Amino acid sequence: MSSPISDALRYRHGTDLADLDTRGTPGFDGSKSDAEKALPELAPEMADLQEKLFAAGYTGSDRRLLLVLQGMDTSGKGGILRHAVGLLDPGGMRLKSFKKPTKEELSHDFLWRIERELPGPGEIGIFDRSHYEDVLVVKVHQLTDAAEIERRYDAINAFEQRLVDEGTVIVKCMLHISPETQKERLLARLDDPTKQWKFKPEDVDERGHWDAYQAAYATALEWCSTEAAPWHVVPSDRKWYRNWAIGQLLREHLAALDLDWPEPDYDIAEQRARLENEK
Amino acid sequence: MSSPISDALRYRHGTDLADLDTRGTPGFDGSKSDAEKALPELAPEMADLQEKLFAAGYTGSDRRLLLVLQGMDTSGKGGILRHAVGLLDPGGMRLKSFKKPTKEELSHDFLWRIERELPGPGEIGIFDRSHYEDVLVVKVHQLTDAAEIERRYDAINAFEQRLVDEGTVIVKCMLHISPETQKERLLARLDDPTKQWKFKPEDVDERGHWDAYQAAYATALEWCSTEAAPWHVVPSDRKWYRNWAIGQLLREHLAALDLDWPEPDYDIAEQRARLENEK
Repeated sequence: MSSPISDALRYRHGTDLADLDTRGTPGFDGSKSDAEKALPELAPEMADLQEKLFAAGYTGSDRRLLLVLQGMDTSGKGGILRHAVGLLDPGGMRLKSFKKPTKEELSHDFLWRIERELPGPGEIGIFDRSHYEDVLVVKVHQLTDAAEIERRYDAINAFEQRLVDEGTVIVKCMLHISPETQKERLLARLDDPTKQWKFKPEDVDERGHWDAYQAAYATALEWCSTEAAPWHVVPSDRKWYRNWAIGQLLREHLAALDLDWPEPDYDIAEQRARLENEK
Repeated sequence: MSSPISDALRYRHGTDLADLDTRGTPGFDGSKSDAEKALPELAPEMADLQEKLFAAGYTGSDRRLLLVLQGMDTSGKGGILRHAVGLLDPGGMRLKSFKKPTKEELSHDFLWRIERELPGPGEIGIFDRSHYEDVLVVKVHQLTDAAEIERRYDAINAFEQRLVDEGTVIVKCMLHISPETQKERLLARLDDPTKQWKFKPEDVDERGHWDAYQAAYATALEWCSTEAAPWHVVPSDRKWYRNWAIGQLLREHLAALDLDWPEPDYDIAEQRARLENEK
């Protein structure tokens, strides 16, 4: 591996999102079919790394990983769950898809419902949408007052710093698509009887706020890309690159944990004798 | 497909568990390598069926599926999660591994913690251990009084009937292994530095209660294998058969839902025009 994909995709402060190519393939040289072949080939190494993390958690370590997926409608959160996250062992994974908050959730601080879904020791948590919705859709539609939104950026940074201090590796990914790609994908949903159920007329209304969403993303990335929990911008107009990149990001961050199999805390010979000398 | 695997594995009232071959391969004719090839080949059809279920839930149906996995230590719940459940789209799945109950959980009725983990509409729920622990380990170790355990069988039947009435398909599987197989697998864990962390000296203590566990399973199967929610006994000495059988059971029960793609509740031409005539 030459340079890590996390470096290639890391958000750099001051970047204009509009300058980042949504059709780019940073860190990947090959074709679509190369990527579709390379992604499942990550599975055996990921399985090994994930099991080491799980084993560490099982034997008292506090290490864990949290993948945060954010992006406009049709940017591919669902496809990533199927193709990249689907390579993981579901037994060591904790996935949460955050929807429009309930009345009860709204009666608490915005981080309340997030807190309840954090991965446990040894687990890989996956957030399909996240606490960032509370500075994205909430900001675009002015669902709360401006001062409260301002407060949230620092609150998010403090929250994520605490998770990192607790032993969590946070991998935040914005799935970056062009408005033309979104239009194509929405039209494709309308044309396909197996996809029509995914389409909502509100999706077209939301497109009308494209620029406001991009501005809200820009602020969130600028404010909340920290040393402890940097943002990554994943070009997502090409589904095959997007899926491969997320798989690769997971692999890299798991490998960086540099975990080994835990030492047994019992006497192996003694336990073997107990089993072999059963009456 | 000749006869469905759910028929071949269904628990028949009055059966003596000891008479069921733990090395059997009911419903499968081929070899180990055939089964290891056949299992991933189920994936495309399962993906289609799962997405139809998810789409139904998304558009108002209350259908859902719950797979319950029970079995002695080393019977392969973890392997099933990796190999069979791992074929599903994690986005439409809700997996819960039940551990020793917490103090808070014990302060409630035994079904309280179960209720909170049930799959939502359109979801496939997976229970790695379940409410049956409350008539298995609890009975073997007399963790509550006999009258309370007796009460629980009927409480489970009433609970499961309610879930079925709500639209849930329940697939209950006992992973059936021989004590010799368990011994082999425990010894294999001791011998393998990548598996030693899974071994606990208490596992050997628990083996001492083998017959009491088999008796507790026999009672649970006899009492709680109902028309609404039958038990299946999956011979699990051969891992490849066990994984294939669970995949096949999932596929069969998903197919039996006989779902189609939901009809759109909006006007397709109108929405296409909105997208195409954007300013």
